[in-house]
Amino acid sequence: MTGRLTTAGRAERILRRLDELFEIGRAAGTNRPGLGEGEQRAFGCAQEWMQQAGLEISVDPAGNLLGRLPGKAPTSGEIWSGSHLDTPPDGGRFDGALGVVAAIDAIEAIADTGGAERTLTAVAWRLEEGCRFGRGVFGSRAAAGMLEPDEADLTDADGVSLGQAFAGLGLGSLPSTGWLDPPPAGYVETHIEQGPVLADTGAAVGVVSSIAGMAGIELWFHGRRGHAGTTPMAMRADALGAAAGFVTAAQDAARAIDGAVCTIGRLTVSPGATNTIPERAELFADLRAPDAERLDALVTAATAAAERAAADAGCRVEIAPRWRYQPAPMSDAPSQALRRAIAASGLDPVTLPSGAGHDATIMAMAGVPTAMLFVRSDADGVSHAPQEHTGAGAVERCVQVLEPALRELATR
Amino acid sequence: MTGRLTTAGRAERILRRLDELFEIGRAAGTNRPGLGEGEQRAFGCAQEWMQQAGLEISVDPAGNLLGRLPGKAPTSGEIWSGSHLDTPPDGGRFDGALGVVAAIDAIEAIADTGGAERTLTAVAWRLEEGCRFGRGVFGSRAAAGMLEPDEADLTDADGVSLGQAFAGLGLGSLPSTGWLDPPPAGYVETHIEQGPVLADTGAAVGVVSSIAGMAGIELWFHGRRGHAGTTPMAMRADALGAAAGFVTAAQDAARAIDGAVCTIGRLTVSPGATNTIPERAELFADLRAPDAERLDALVTAATAAAERAAADAGCRVEIAPRWRYQPAPMSDAPSQALRRAIAASGLDPVTLPSGAGHDATIMAMAGVPTAMLFVRSDADGVSHAPQEHTGAGAVERCVQVLEPALRELATR
Repeated sequence: MTGRLTTAGRAERILRRLDELFEIGRAAGTNRPGLGEGEQRAFGCAQEWMQQAGLEISVDPAGNLLGRLPGKAPTSGEIWSGSHLDTPPDGGRFDGALGVVAAIDAIEAIADTGGAERTLTAVAWRLEEGCRFGRGVFGSRAAAGMLEPDEADLTDADGVSLGQAFAGLGLGSLPSTGWLDPPPAGYVETHIEQGPVLADTGAAVGVVSSIAGMAGIELWFHGRRGHAGTTPMAMRADALGAAAGFVTAAQDAARAIDGAVCTIGRLTVSPGATNTIPERAELFADLRAPDAERLDALVTAATAAAERAAADAGCRVEIAPRWRYQPAPMSDAPSQALRRAIAASGLDPVTLPSGAGHDATIMAMAGVPTAMLFVRSDADGVSHAPQEHTGAGAVERCVQVLEPALRELATR
Repeated sequence: MTGRLTTAGRAERILRRLDELFEIGRAAGTNRPGLGEGEQRAFGCAQEWMQQAGLEISVDPAGNLLGRLPGKAPTSGEIWSGSHLDTPPDGGRFDGALGVVAAIDAIEAIADTGGAERTLTAVAWRLEEGCRFGRGVFGSRAAAGMLEPDEADLTDADGVSLGQAFAGLGLGSLPSTGWLDPPPAGYVETHIEQGPVLADTGAAVGVVSSIAGMAGIELWFHGRRGHAGTTPMAMRADALGAAAGFVTAAQDAARAIDGAVCTIGRLTVSPGATNTIPERAELFADLRAPDAERLDALVTAATAAAERAAADAGCRVEIAPRWRYQPAPMSDAPSQALRRAIAASGLDPVTLPSGAGHDATIMAMAGVPTAMLFVRSDADGVSHAPQEHTGAGAVERCVQVLEPALRELATR
C-alpha cells in the first residue's frame, strides 16, 4: 500500500529496492547480465513487489515480466510503463532498475486510490544491455517481432549462445513472431539520463525529445603471426597495429561529426602472447549520432577507416554490422502528459535528447505512442559504473511526475 | 644407440621426437606453457630419451633436466648443450625442442663412439618463453642466480602465480641463489633461426654473432568509464583511445631505429563491455634492438609515446619495466668450433645475429663461453605458430655439425 506513504517515503522505498537489486551479483558494481542468473533473481524481486502492489502477474514468451492493474474500461488500449533489470559488468544502481521500480510504485499508488479506466501494466524487459551478446533490447524486440534470424546463435564472451541462455531459464526456444496485438496505447519509460545535461541545467527530471540513432559493428583484423624478435617491422602484418590505427581514425571521425560518438569497448588480441606478433584483433564499435544523416556519415567514415588501417598494416579486415537503430522521435501525447505533470509539480519541463538507446526505441519503432521521463544523473552523469548516482530529491520528483502522467494517460 | 643410424636416420629420429612433443597440448599448434602440464610431459619424454642414450639424469633446484655423459677427465669443466621445451600458445614443432633433442642425439653419438674427456651434458631449461608470466628464461636465470625478488609473484592470465605453478610441479619454493659453481666450460645452443635470413642466403645452418638486447615493459592506461551513448567525445577519458595512440607511436618509433622492433602482443580492455567507455587498458610491449644504444633509444621513445598518448586522451599511464637484457655477444672458442664443423661438412659458415632472446643470453651473461647454432627456418621464417617448419635436409646438416663441434669442445 502506497496510501500510507508520503512522497519522500515512496522515494525512500524505491531507493531501498534499488539497493536490494544492486546487491545481486555485487562485486565492484552489480553484475546482472541479461538472460543470466542475476537478472533472473532481479525478476523474482520485481515479481514480489508487483504482487505486493496487487498487480496480476504474467510472463510473456520472451520471459518479460508484466504486472497488470486491470482497467475499468477493459476494451480501451493498455498503458505500459517499465524498463529493464539487467546491467553491464560492474554496473550501477539506477540504469534500468529505476524505470521498473518507479512504474510499480506509480501503478500501486493508482491502484490504492481506486484505479483507472485503462489497464496499467508495469513491465520488466529482458536483456536490454548490448554488452553480453553484442546486441541488446532483446525482450522488447521479441515482443515487437523484431528478433533477427541469427539471434539464438549470438554468443557471449564465455561461448554461451543466446539460445542456450534463454533455454537455461526454462523459456524453451526463441519466439519467432511478436505478440503486441493489439499494441499498448502508450508506453512511458522512466530512466536515469546517464549524462550531465539535467545536472548542468539544475533540473531533477526532463522529457526526452528523441533517442539517438545507433549502429553496432564487429570487426576482425587479420594479420600474420610471427616471432617478436626476428620479424623486421617492414615485414610484419600486425593485426593489433591495424586495430590501433582503426580506433584512432574512427574516434577522430566521430569528433568531426557534431553530436556523434564512437566507443570501442571490446578488443581482444590473438594469440595474446607477449612475444608473438598478433595474428588477429577482434573489436566491437558502438557508433551513435543524433539523426539518420549523421549516423550514415559516421558508419561510412568508420568503415573506410577500418579498410585503410588494414591496408596500411598489410592486414585484411572483416566487418559485420550487428545492429542499427534509426533515431526514434518520441510521441506527442505521452510526452505532453509528462510535461503537464512536471509543470503541475512546480517545475520547468526541460526537454533533451537521449544519447543512449532504450527499450523505448523499440516501442516507438513498433508504433506504440512512446515517451521517456529522464531523471537526473548525479556524479557527473557517470553510468555503467558503480559510481552511478541519483539523489533522493530527484527520485521524489520522479514519484511526483510519473504517477499523475500515467493516471492522465489511463483516463483518456 | 645412434651407432646403427645414418645421418639421415638420426635426423628422422629427431623429427619423430619433435612430432611426439608437438602432439602434447595439441590444438591449432602445440601448447606447452612453461611450468605447466604440457612442459612437464615434454620433460618426461626428454628424460626417457636421455636414459635411452645412457646419460645420467639429474634435476636441478629450478626443475631443469640434465643428462650427463661423464668425461674421462672429470676435473676439467663440463660442456653443456640444450635449449627449452615450453612453447607460446599454439606454437610450432621446432622452437626450443630442436635444441634439446639435437643435443641428446649428438651426445648419444659421442657416447656410442667412446665418449670424450670432458663431461658432456644435455640440458632442458624450464620456462624460456616470456609469454606466460611476462618474463622468460626462468630456468637458466635460476641456475645463474638471476631470479628477481618478485619472481614468485608474477601471475599468468588465469591469475596463477609463478610460485604456485612451480610448487604445483612438486619443486617446492623458488631457489634464492644460483648453482653454476663451477660454471660449465662451454654452452652450445642449437635453435631454429625463427627468421628468414638463412633461407634467403640458401644456408642450412649458421653461427650466431650476438643476441639482440630486449626490454619488456608493462603499461596500464587509466581512463574514466562511462556510457557509450551519453558521454560526448570531448568529455571522455577513453583508456583504449590512449592505448591505441601508444601502439601506433611506439611502433613508429621502432620503425625509425634501424634493426629495432616493437611488438605489443597482449592488450586487454576493462570492463570490456561494448557500450561502456573503457576505464583501463593493459598492454605488454616487447622492445628489441641490436645494440645497447639503440635499445636505450627505443625504450626512451616508447616511454615518451605512452606519456603523450595518455595526456592526449585525458588519461594517465603507469609503466612497469618487466625485464631487460643487454645485447649478448657470443664467445669465440665455441663459435669457432661450430664454424670448423660447418666447414668440415662442406658448407660455408654463415654468421648472423639473433633477434630473439635465448637461454644462451643468460649463459653468456653468466660468463659461460657460449655459442649458438642456428638452423634454417623454412615457411618464410614464421615461428611461434603451427606453420613453423624446418626441412629434413637442414636437420641433417645440424646433426652433421653439432656432434663434431661438441666433440672438439669436449676434448680440449
